[in-house]
Amino acid sequence: MEMAKIGATDKGGVCRLALTETDKESRDLFATWCREAGCTVTVDQVGNMYARRPGTRDDLPPVGTGSHLDTQPTGGRFDGSYGVLAALEVVRTLNDKSIETEAPVEIVAWTNEEGARFSPAMMGSGVSAGVFTIDEAWSQKDRDGVTVKEALDAIGYRGEETPGRRYGAFFEAHIEQGPILEKESNTIGIVTGVQGTRWYDVSLTGEEAHAGPTPMEGRRDPVAGTGELLPEIYRLALDREPHGRVTVTGLGSHPDSRNTVPSTCRLAVDLRHPDGEELAAMDEGLKAAVARVARARGLGHAVTDVWTSEPITFDADCVAAVRRGAEQMGYRAQTIISGAGHDSVYMSTVAPTAMVFIPCEGGVSHNETENATPEDVEAGANVILHAVLERAGSAGP
Amino acid sequence: MEMAKIGATDKGGVCRLALTETDKESRDLFATWCREAGCTVTVDQVGNMYARRPGTRDDLPPVGTGSHLDTQPTGGRFDGSYGVLAALEVVRTLNDKSIETEAPVEIVAWTNEEGARFSPAMMGSGVSAGVFTIDEAWSQKDRDGVTVKEALDAIGYRGEETPGRRYGAFFEAHIEQGPILEKESNTIGIVTGVQGTRWYDVSLTGEEAHAGPTPMEGRRDPVAGTGELLPEIYRLALDREPHGRVTVTGLGSHPDSRNTVPSTCRLAVDLRHPDGEELAAMDEGLKAAVARVARARGLGHAVTDVWTSEPITFDADCVAAVRRGAEQMGYRAQTIISGAGHDSVYMSTVAPTAMVFIPCEGGVSHNETENATPEDVEAGANVILHAVLERAGSAGP
Repeated sequence: MEMAKIGATDKGGVCRLALTETDKESRDLFATWCREAGCTVTVDQVGNMYARRPGTRDDLPPVGTGSHLDTQPTGGRFDGSYGVLAALEVVRTLNDKSIETEAPVEIVAWTNEEGARFSPAMMGSGVSAGVFTIDEAWSQKDRDGVTVKEALDAIGYRGEETPGRRYGAFFEAHIEQGPILEKESNTIGIVTGVQGTRWYDVSLTGEEAHAGPTPMEGRRDPVAGTGELLPEIYRLALDREPHGRVTVTGLGSHPDSRNTVPSTCRLAVDLRHPDGEELAAMDEGLKAAVARVARARGLGHAVTDVWTSEPITFDADCVAAVRRGAEQMGYRAQTIISGAGHDSVYMSTVAPTAMVFIPCEGGVSHNETENATPEDVEAGANVILHAVLERAGSAGP
Repeated sequence: MEMAKIGATDKGGVCRLALTETDKESRDLFATWCREAGCTVTVDQVGNMYARRPGTRDDLPPVGTGSHLDTQPTGGRFDGSYGVLAALEVVRTLNDKSIETEAPVEIVAWTNEEGARFSPAMMGSGVSAGVFTIDEAWSQKDRDGVTVKEALDAIGYRGEETPGRRYGAFFEAHIEQGPILEKESNTIGIVTGVQGTRWYDVSLTGEEAHAGPTPMEGRRDPVAGTGELLPEIYRLALDREPHGRVTVTGLGSHPDSRNTVPSTCRLAVDLRHPDGEELAAMDEGLKAAVARVARARGLGHAVTDVWTSEPITFDADCVAAVRRGAEQMGYRAQTIISGAGHDSVYMSTVAPTAMVFIPCEGGVSHNETENATPEDVEAGANVILHAVLERAGSAGP
């Protein structure tokens, strides 16, 4: 709640866009707290922050845990910050209990996870995992033409270290951003992976005609085609419940005159599934449905692949560590698939990784009213603590 | 083709917006031709032009025939002008054959049928029929703030006569603006009436949610609701073929973000039918379908009536006169319903009225490529001639 004061909005949320003055304030506060907890704080070239608590065997790769401090423009208090501060709480607890670990433990705050000011999202973890180069990241501009490099310099967070730290294991605590844990009355989500996502632009093209004199028969109406198509697109998810997801946005028809049968209709389609083969089948199903409707109605059609993120399966041993953490504490837990992207998506490509979800009030996130209970917040941090301890190895007391 | 040179476009069409300089040129040419044909030309307060050929009994109400000279911005050569010039050809033919009629015959050119520069459409005939007052018409403004009254004065066509001439019968020849006559290989459409039209704005309202973490079950997705609704809306016409028509335009969903299940979806619906009871049933069907889908999916809904034009049935005797005209000439003819509005809609409320359609190449109108054959143009004028003669009464030779 102290961190949530930085960038606090009137409606109880947080506006802390990446690499702004409020982001700097949150980074400064985070660094102060980490140093007070005895950590060494380092910043890399893309502004990722690492707070290291030494282990008894500093030759071992550290165990990392953390998330991000930046928010959406109308973001909540928990998305991101919770994972960073849960990691800090792990270190404080180790300190309080005078527990030494074999491997070092590092708290990580990744730069620009949200992608709200600078694209792409998950920038800091992406650079660290080698998905983007540092030059690609530095050259991205916000709407005012300010580059990431300039913004890093402006707040004094362009470090010297080359991004790319490697971890023996990485854990991230996060608010679920969905309604499932709350609905199931579970406290802990043992996240086994992240949905794959495919984005498309779809258009159907027919022929303009007068709305009055033109009989229904013989019209080449792309909106009528869309009416036939939409239920088929949604069926791609409904046939794959509970894991399949279909979202259609960006509907538009042209020309936009009441007297004229439109000549084009466009829609944006988002398909998601945690299983790569199922996602591929949904992809095929979408393209086949569009082609079939277009053929049947004499319409032109186009399906453009806009973006693809393949499904991620988290490391089985790390997932098991999370599960044992929840069991040890006696929390009601369930496995769950993340529907949203997180820094752990990129981390999982370079380190054994898993995530812990806690319930999200009403499933509402990316919203100033985002909320979680103190009990759940504590529980998630406790699970992270046990998972980190298992992977870092306790050296006493 | 001579008239089509005034305002001719590069693509072979005509741009002759109401009460512009090109409209004035076409009016001047029309008046010259009418005077050359021995008519007296009068202009009323809204710019309607009347060219009178006397009868042997000037105590009888005249038989009127005509249409409009203004066009859409990218209009064709036939829409409107054809009906005015067919009427002129009727008078010229009566002259050539030295035929006197009992009742006078008047060629009418109505002001601003298209409504492209000034709303509403069918303004001149509407004022004449008492649907709008002269002050309502005069005060309408174009996009530059010029009023109808100012525009009439600017081109010298604000006459002194109070609008409201009454006719013993009124006939209008017009290009079909649809594909039916061409498809049926008929030359003459005996227009029995005009479809009724109802315009609506429809919206469905749900709740924004994350596209990824939110299961399909429990989503309140107005786009999915629209996908269920659209086929039901089109069915209102498909269940009433060939006369029912449904056109959906103006699709839009908000917020327009790929990652977010939209909270609202809107569409504009156009329902048409020549039978008032059927149109009322379509109206009920639309409202019931929207309510049913909204209820089933937990969505809010609104159906706003935007505009209604009740169906018109033309005068049975005038329709019979048109039919006999076609039969006398041996033209392939069929009855047909007009899908578009015409000056005859308003005229039919104050005089026995009917229309004659001729085929429209490819059904394309309100388009610079609008086309009709010389043979069909001649045939339509011949049918008007016979209908006018029947109603005006031949006095010889």
